[in-house]
Amino acid sequence: MRIVMIGTGNVATILGRKMKAAGHQLVQVVGRTAASTQKLAHQWEANYTTTTTQLDQTADLYIIAVADAAIASVAAGLTLRHKLLVHTAGSVSKEVLKASSDRYGVLYPLQSLRASMEQLPAIPFLVDANREEDIEGLRSFAAGLSGQVGVAGDEQRLKLHVAAVMVSNFTNHLYTLAERYCEAEQADFALLHPLIQQVADRLQYGSPKDAQTGPAIRHDEPTIQKHLELLASHGELQELYAWFTKSIQR
Amino acid sequence: MRIVMIGTGNVATILGRKMKAAGHQLVQVVGRTAASTQKLAHQWEANYTTTTTQLDQTADLYIIAVADAAIASVAAGLTLRHKLLVHTAGSVSKEVLKASSDRYGVLYPLQSLRASMEQLPAIPFLVDANREEDIEGLRSFAAGLSGQVGVAGDEQRLKLHVAAVMVSNFTNHLYTLAERYCEAEQADFALLHPLIQQVADRLQYGSPKDAQTGPAIRHDEPTIQKHLELLASHGELQELYAWFTKSIQR
Repeated sequence: MRIVMIGTGNVATILGRKMKAAGHQLVQVVGRTAASTQKLAHQWEANYTTTTTQLDQTADLYIIAVADAAIASVAAGLTLRHKLLVHTAGSVSKEVLKASSDRYGVLYPLQSLRASMEQLPAIPFLVDANREEDIEGLRSFAAGLSGQVGVAGDEQRLKLHVAAVMVSNFTNHLYTLAERYCEAEQADFALLHPLIQQVADRLQYGSPKDAQTGPAIRHDEPTIQKHLELLASHGELQELYAWFTKSIQR
Repeated sequence: MRIVMIGTGNVATILGRKMKAAGHQLVQVVGRTAASTQKLAHQWEANYTTTTTQLDQTADLYIIAVADAAIASVAAGLTLRHKLLVHTAGSVSKEVLKASSDRYGVLYPLQSLRASMEQLPAIPFLVDANREEDIEGLRSFAAGLSGQVGVAGDEQRLKLHVAAVMVSNFTNHLYTLAERYCEAEQADFALLHPLIQQVADRLQYGSPKDAQTGPAIRHDEPTIQKHLELLASHGELQELYAWFTKSIQR
């Protein structure tokens, strides 16, 4: 596929690398600032522009990979004729692209992407489009990039985005709170790394509901009480501990 | 080391395997039920008994690896002369072993252990003892089993146990809630596995506080509002979402 990438941030950078690695051609990078746009274009042996008036009109696929809040305004600056235009957001309707092309859709990567990643991670994709043929086209394009591809309309994609926020942003915040607690109490957070790894790894072998351990599920009240007392000087953590204990026991 | 293992559950099974693999000798297994005790003893080429009156008195190290609430009563049934006796619990004081031997301590594995694990995971240890020489002895014994060993008294160990509960039990419960939500909404939870893996893996490269992403940290109010509305029929999740969003933004 011949691809135009609109955006130069984390998602644009990693998706572009993934597509390049799969043998696709990045023909043009479109960005706001010349320096970062040129840098990506150079890596991908692509042209670049900072004004959409110079948009390459010959590509097969146009990808808007910018901040959610900017998608609509970026799309408003584009006019494509019979060209497939997609965005990459979990929580934005595909309909925001409607005025920019008669073929539009979504290519949503269910992964936490950072431009600085050295190794490309596995990236499941959810695809969607207004035309049945483009859903199939995007599905097969995504299948060339990933072993996990699903089709999901706006609402279904939003639901998976919520679930993704829970298992990634909230989990990472739990790690952050635990690290801050360890720092405050002169304990070594790195001692917890293998445990964290283990809890994530074992999802491959079965449902998390069958793997729940700890004082809450055992209804081990003496331990729960000791833990809550210890957290008395960390109000937010005590609240969190009480909430999770109750929720696990429900 | 010549070791007597008291207990036949998850912790006893995995620690025994780890010790055996490191070249130590399990001389005796002590359990409540003959069948499971005999089974472990057979695997380890050890003797076994179901009554502490037949306890082998010639070992170097006696390990009580039973449920937290049972440690004190198991210890009460033991009388050891100048033999090192330890338990394996994060939240139980070493002093519960005091009446059973003049040398006592703790060997606490900071890992989620299940007897059915095929691969032995990395297991950080926290060690403690009433005598300085035994702290050193346990530290060097644990260092033969693990690349991560710390020394921690009762209170410090309890603190790391609380942090362990947060990053493992609470995290696993987040996965469980997300899986249940996906099932209710006909979404495929397996699409989230690579994301979960990624969030755990990247702890190797830096602090979780520098890796926080998502709508909360971006103060992306339109997305947060969409997500909260979507969760209106899942009261517990909506509460969770609101709590984490507030906490991340603090």
